[in-house]
Amino acid sequence: KLQMNLDQIEKGGFEHFMLKEIYEQPKAITDTYRGRLNREEAIIKMSSVEDNMKKFLAADRIIIVACGTSWHAGLVAEYIFEDLARIPVEVEYASEFRYRNPIITEKDVVIAISQSGETADTLAAIKLAKSKGAFVFGVCNVVGSSIARETHTGAYTHAGPEIGVASTKAFTTQITVLSLIALRLARAKGTISSSDFRHHLLEFEMIPKKVEKALESDAHIKMIADIYKDSKNCLYLGRGYNFPVALEGALKLKEISYIHAEGYPAAEMKHGPIALIDENMPVVVIATKKGHYEKVVSNIQEIKSRKGKIIGIVTEGDVDVRELADHVIEVPETLESLSPLLTTIPLQLLSYHIAVLLGKNVDQPRNLAKSVTVE
Amino acid sequence: KLQMNLDQIEKGGFEHFMLKEIYEQPKAITDTYRGRLNREEAIIKMSSVEDNMKKFLAADRIIIVACGTSWHAGLVAEYIFEDLARIPVEVEYASEFRYRNPIITEKDVVIAISQSGETADTLAAIKLAKSKGAFVFGVCNVVGSSIARETHTGAYTHAGPEIGVASTKAFTTQITVLSLIALRLARAKGTISSSDFRHHLLEFEMIPKKVEKALESDAHIKMIADIYKDSKNCLYLGRGYNFPVALEGALKLKEISYIHAEGYPAAEMKHGPIALIDENMPVVVIATKKGHYEKVVSNIQEIKSRKGKIIGIVTEGDVDVRELADHVIEVPETLESLSPLLTTIPLQLLSYHIAVLLGKNVDQPRNLAKSVTVE
Repeated sequence: KLQMNLDQIEKGGFEHFMLKEIYEQPKAITDTYRGRLNREEAIIKMSSVEDNMKKFLAADRIIIVACGTSWHAGLVAEYIFEDLARIPVEVEYASEFRYRNPIITEKDVVIAISQSGETADTLAAIKLAKSKGAFVFGVCNVVGSSIARETHTGAYTHAGPEIGVASTKAFTTQITVLSLIALRLARAKGTISSSDFRHHLLEFEMIPKKVEKALESDAHIKMIADIYKDSKNCLYLGRGYNFPVALEGALKLKEISYIHAEGYPAAEMKHGPIALIDENMPVVVIATKKGHYEKVVSNIQEIKSRKGKIIGIVTEGDVDVRELADHVIEVPETLESLSPLLTTIPLQLLSYHIAVLLGKNVDQPRNLAKSVTVE
Repeated sequence: KLQMNLDQIEKGGFEHFMLKEIYEQPKAITDTYRGRLNREEAIIKMSSVEDNMKKFLAADRIIIVACGTSWHAGLVAEYIFEDLARIPVEVEYASEFRYRNPIITEKDVVIAISQSGETADTLAAIKLAKSKGAFVFGVCNVVGSSIARETHTGAYTHAGPEIGVASTKAFTTQITVLSLIALRLARAKGTISSSDFRHHLLEFEMIPKKVEKALESDAHIKMIADIYKDSKNCLYLGRGYNFPVALEGALKLKEISYIHAEGYPAAEMKHGPIALIDENMPVVVIATKKGHYEKVVSNIQEIKSRKGKIIGIVTEGDVDVRELADHVIEVPETLESLSPLLTTIPLQLLSYHIAVLLGKNVDQPRNLAKSVTVE
């Protein structure tokens, strides 16, 4: 049945659905914030948040439950909720959460994230949270899906249908929705200044154009992919907002190229993983200007001194990392809190090109299903 | 200077300090609970906990900060604190915590874990937490270390000097201290019944003998190590209490054998990493009887159907996993909450033997320092 759909839906001139969906992100992000973000009036308005503002503001903490890529979007959200709205967030693997006898009360807000809205473990976690009296908010892409129906309320991502098994535009639109919620709550709580809030809205509206700019590195990334396609292993490092992006970049490479890639918070390297580094280990480091840049540069120096190969994801015009790294891929400058929407793009393209060069089935990788409806 | 010490200190008949320290665990665990756990009177008494009982009981949540292996001990503690004492726990990488503008108040209890007591990132996180008014409790091994002095109070692990760079007995004694605290708080809060508490104390006292029993698999594990020593990659899976043990097992293999090993919660496999599985991928699965056994068995079936090689860590007398797995390593039965103290043992031995067979410098792996005193 999926095959039939695959044949019917236009790839729009792209070789694979995954590449089409990577390129759709400027539109998908725009579609997701349109009608919710109003820069001229300096407001964010999402009815499901407005209608439940009391619950959100009374929450001692927000628990995010998800699996896979959605779990990574949850980790990005943790940073933005805590940083801007000053609400403690706990991000849980849905499969672990539901079996761990979790502490949930009526005062908790649970946000469940799932592209398909059918993820079995996430659905079970939602039912558990509801049974304990928590308020459960869903972030799904598929309208009318089980999770959309099972949650108290929620907000859809407007990514459009995602066919490639490796999630791309679902991830960036999930981050978009979660960032809008965090900004709205920050405004309501007064934890963000009016000018800072306006600045965020302005930057938000520039993200789609900047994603387009990031996509222009495609040919350069393909060249880098060709150099590293035969690697057996790869590490992805990031700090702060870009630590979850490192995890997601590694997951993409695992999923479609079957290369063992692993993400780490950059500073944890010296507590063990740095032992893996030698001249055969490519290390992708997200080293944008905002977000502990000097610290990341020093992490890069440690890796270079052990002869690791560095692919740096840097801000346009970067000089320091360019000197140290074997390759750099530029993304436009933006606020640190919105940077995951840009730094994700080259990592998607890198895994895509490596998988294609290796002759893998990019849209339907082995062993994987698009929507995991079993436990 | 370290070299001088290495030469001076007796290896006690063992080929490496790491192996000596693995074998010291029955004694180290006993030394750590002795004087704190009194089974006959059915009490746990730790002066630093008693003296600050009000703070612990008033805490909305406990934040654990650590790096590397200590961070894994913190993750185990998260399960036991939440499960038995019903206190929400957040476990943070010290390096991420200190730079993320964390939400900390006077009502928070922060537990900092570090073998050396000198870990720079953890020390900085402690100073940050103190500046925000939090109560900070240290769990260190080295008496009089910086973290022991910088925290408000704490409890030492009594592991004795740990020379091998890859931490072994420090990990199990950290879990011992943290479990004692969780049990003490559970008793004070009344979230554990008197009989269940007594049962835990009884089982606790049997752990050292059971660790000895687990160590008896040494020769069998060496044989398994010989089969898989040339693997380029390895996955470690666990659920619940044994998910952090999977992370720690993978870290051990990384640190001393330089094989790229990665830990995952077993149920997350189907959300991406299962794409990596083929006949060349060894997968170590912790599948003890207590702790979602049936779910783990079904995860093992998924891996076998993709031709992965399974090394199962199972409970003595296990039948189901034995039928599916390529190899099994038995550990004695105990309470789920104490099982990490046993399941860790074969994983330490497996990484040790692989590294020795590969001719690596087990006690001083490349690129790593015993105590990370730089950021």
